Amino acid sequence: MDTSKERIQNTLDQFNVIGPTEQGIQRLAYTKEEKRAHELLIELCSQEKMNVRIDEAGNVIARRAGRLPNAPAVAVGSHLDTVYTGGKFDGTAGVVAGLELIRRLNEKDAISENPIELICFAAEESSRFGMSTIGSKAMVGKMTKEEMEKLKDKMGIKFTDAIKSAGLDKQSFLNAKKEKNEYRAFIELHIEQGLELEQSNKKIAIVTGIASPTRLNVVVLGRAAHSGTTSMEMRKDALVAAAQLVLEIEKAAKKEKKYKTVATVGVFDVSPGAMNVVPGMVQLKVDIRGLDNNSKQRVITEIEYQCKSIQRCKDIEIKMETISKEEPVHLDKEIQEQLKWACEDIKVEALLIPSGAGHDAMNMANLCPTGLLFIPSYKGISHNPEEYSDIDDLVTGVDVLERVVTRLAVTKERGVKQ
Amino acid sequence: MDTSKERIQNTLDQFNVIGPTEQGIQRLAYTKEEKRAHELLIELCSQEKMNVRIDEAGNVIARRAGRLPNAPAVAVGSHLDTVYTGGKFDGTAGVVAGLELIRRLNEKDAISENPIELICFAAEESSRFGMSTIGSKAMVGKMTKEEMEKLKDKMGIKFTDAIKSAGLDKQSFLNAKKEKNEYRAFIELHIEQGLELEQSNKKIAIVTGIASPTRLNVVVLGRAAHSGTTSMEMRKDALVAAAQLVLEIEKAAKKEKKYKTVATVGVFDVSPGAMNVVPGMVQLKVDIRGLDNNSKQRVITEIEYQCKSIQRCKDIEIKMETISKEEPVHLDKEIQEQLKWACEDIKVEALLIPSGAGHDAMNMANLCPTGLLFIPSYKGISHNPEEYSDIDDLVTGVDVLERVVTRLAVTKERGVKQ
Repeated sequence: MDTSKERIQNTLDQFNVIGPTEQGIQRLAYTKEEKRAHELLIELCSQEKMNVRIDEAGNVIARRAGRLPNAPAVAVGSHLDTVYTGGKFDGTAGVVAGLELIRRLNEKDAISENPIELICFAAEESSRFGMSTIGSKAMVGKMTKEEMEKLKDKMGIKFTDAIKSAGLDKQSFLNAKKEKNEYRAFIELHIEQGLELEQSNKKIAIVTGIASPTRLNVVVLGRAAHSGTTSMEMRKDALVAAAQLVLEIEKAAKKEKKYKTVATVGVFDVSPGAMNVVPGMVQLKVDIRGLDNNSKQRVITEIEYQCKSIQRCKDIEIKMETISKEEPVHLDKEIQEQLKWACEDIKVEALLIPSGAGHDAMNMANLCPTGLLFIPSYKGISHNPEEYSDIDDLVTGVDVLERVVTRLAVTKERGVKQ
Repeated sequence: MDTSKERIQNTLDQFNVIGPTEQGIQRLAYTKEEKRAHELLIELCSQEKMNVRIDEAGNVIARRAGRLPNAPAVAVGSHLDTVYTGGKFDGTAGVVAGLELIRRLNEKDAISENPIELICFAAEESSRFGMSTIGSKAMVGKMTKEEMEKLKDKMGIKFTDAIKSAGLDKQSFLNAKKEKNEYRAFIELHIEQGLELEQSNKKIAIVTGIASPTRLNVVVLGRAAHSGTTSMEMRKDALVAAAQLVLEIEKAAKKEKKYKTVATVGVFDVSPGAMNVVPGMVQLKVDIRGLDNNSKQRVITEIEYQCKSIQRCKDIEIKMETISKEEPVHLDKEIQEQLKWACEDIKVEALLIPSGAGHDAMNMANLCPTGLLFIPSYKGISHNPEEYSDIDDLVTGVDVLERVVTRLAVTKERGVKQ
């Protein structure tokens, strides 16, 4: 076990010298830094005698042959790109876990019926192009030519030029699409990026589904006025009205505790924002997530109701529009059962939780039975240089992965080398 | 009366062709545009046979001689500089009213015991240098050399260089200071910049005092977290805590309705301000104004209490500091009585209100008995191209000014020219 832990630590370290900046690690989608990380992965997988290729969307696919070459593959994987001020674990932990799984199998000289793949998806983070999970979207046919033509990064570099620099061809990019019969299952290991595991003192979570967000844009229109010359009674203070709405939104989500639905006002811009002016306008954006569509809808309905109610009481105009509405993705029950069995087998109590964050797994769920495992994030910190997960927890994650992948791919050990 | 109205309109128009921009009028402090407006005023005052000089701080002082040349002057006036996107009435209305008063006196060939002055203060607006009422501060000795050396505009131009360009000398600038025995009284006419007059359907307000602000800086420190991965129970949402504080601040001020104390959160910055991040920090600024110091203090104490209470309940850190604390200025009772008498005399019902906005009158009150008159602002709009006041109301204002100034300066008509 110590060998496994050391290997995981060393491999993580190898990846994390790529893309250093003063504020954490930066390997943005389709940049040289992401490419260098992919090249290292290719080298490490080749050392493990895997057959490695880069698909049309830049995803790295490393295959460990099975006895039945045409059988659908059992795949694991995650991503190696990061946000602007990234940490050492988001994505990288899952890729390193997958590589460790392969090393263990090789160490045991195991032979499986189905091929086993390690996939490193390109461009998972939305930081560069404002769109997340690009590689896995392309792989499941959820990306379009129109989107490709539209996307640009903050420097104004077109997506199509960026992928060209990364050695890809925009004409064939969408050919990365896989067919359903190519995969038996996909399982991703990822850091939680939240506090649930830490707070419940558990070491692993089996994700039940991905609670994709519905997003609302709300504009509260009051009347800007001089802070000194306008009595409290004559004000139409947009901030006071919006503050009330923020509290009602929190209340609405808290009522849905049972369903773990959450609602967040993350963007809240007050105009004109001067010390001596009663705010005339607040623009706020609400992000609502939950696996239970009815519960999510109750929160949205309550927000609509509160907008109307505050509008009436305060003689203020409130406009609300839905800017995106994504359906929650429920993850495969069979894979969840397998993961539970594996946790029991190693005597680790698993937490069952929905994921509020999007992951490549959510796209892969369109292609094949998909699972998602979380390991604890120190203080829930993520997208930050201080992101940290205990290597022992990563080892536990690989233990679970190994059991389930071995079972799904019908694997037998031929002998233990070491 | 129609002649007076026409003269007021024409004179306003003459000033308001100076400093046009796409978004209103711009005659910033100590710029060419302010200077051109001052030059026009000097020309118009000279036509009225006044003795005009520019003092060391750039204030224009036009004097109509009295029978007793050494008697203290009775002064009226306001300012001709504007904010960035200024309107046609803020300041200008008071200068034009003063000029109209002089024209009426000349028309009647009136002779007064005391000299009568029209003062156009320089740099009343804080827009350029972040400090307001600079001209009148200099005139009453409230400006210091240190402040002069520190001030800069947004372009980085030093205050001392700006006044040099305006033809002034930084060495002598503070010599603009007047002695108390130089003035018998000062009365300013200004637009209300609020809604009290319009809502009460009155045409003139006698200002009882100037409710200078106390300003607080409040920082609410929660914990930034992923909006999708953090359950409602585990959040330390700085926005939710700050929203609660906003409502408590409004409540605290509304309790002081009797004292007309107001409290405003005008600045409210939410960090990091991303759709998918629970806000970790809110910085807010509170502006509290009122004539009654005890009432103002009760509001501040309540805000302090609420900060502590929210901090405790929400396990969030709240820091509060006082960034400025100005004392309210009570205006002279005798002048208020004179103004009331004049309103009764012309059968106009006056509203008695505090001013929440600062004015040159608040500085002049340090020098001599001071009065402040408000005429209605259309919809309370000010510091905006849409600022508007009815010329009939300006005529009423001049009627009041004329009566009071005539009385204070002991004036007799020698005959009516027209």
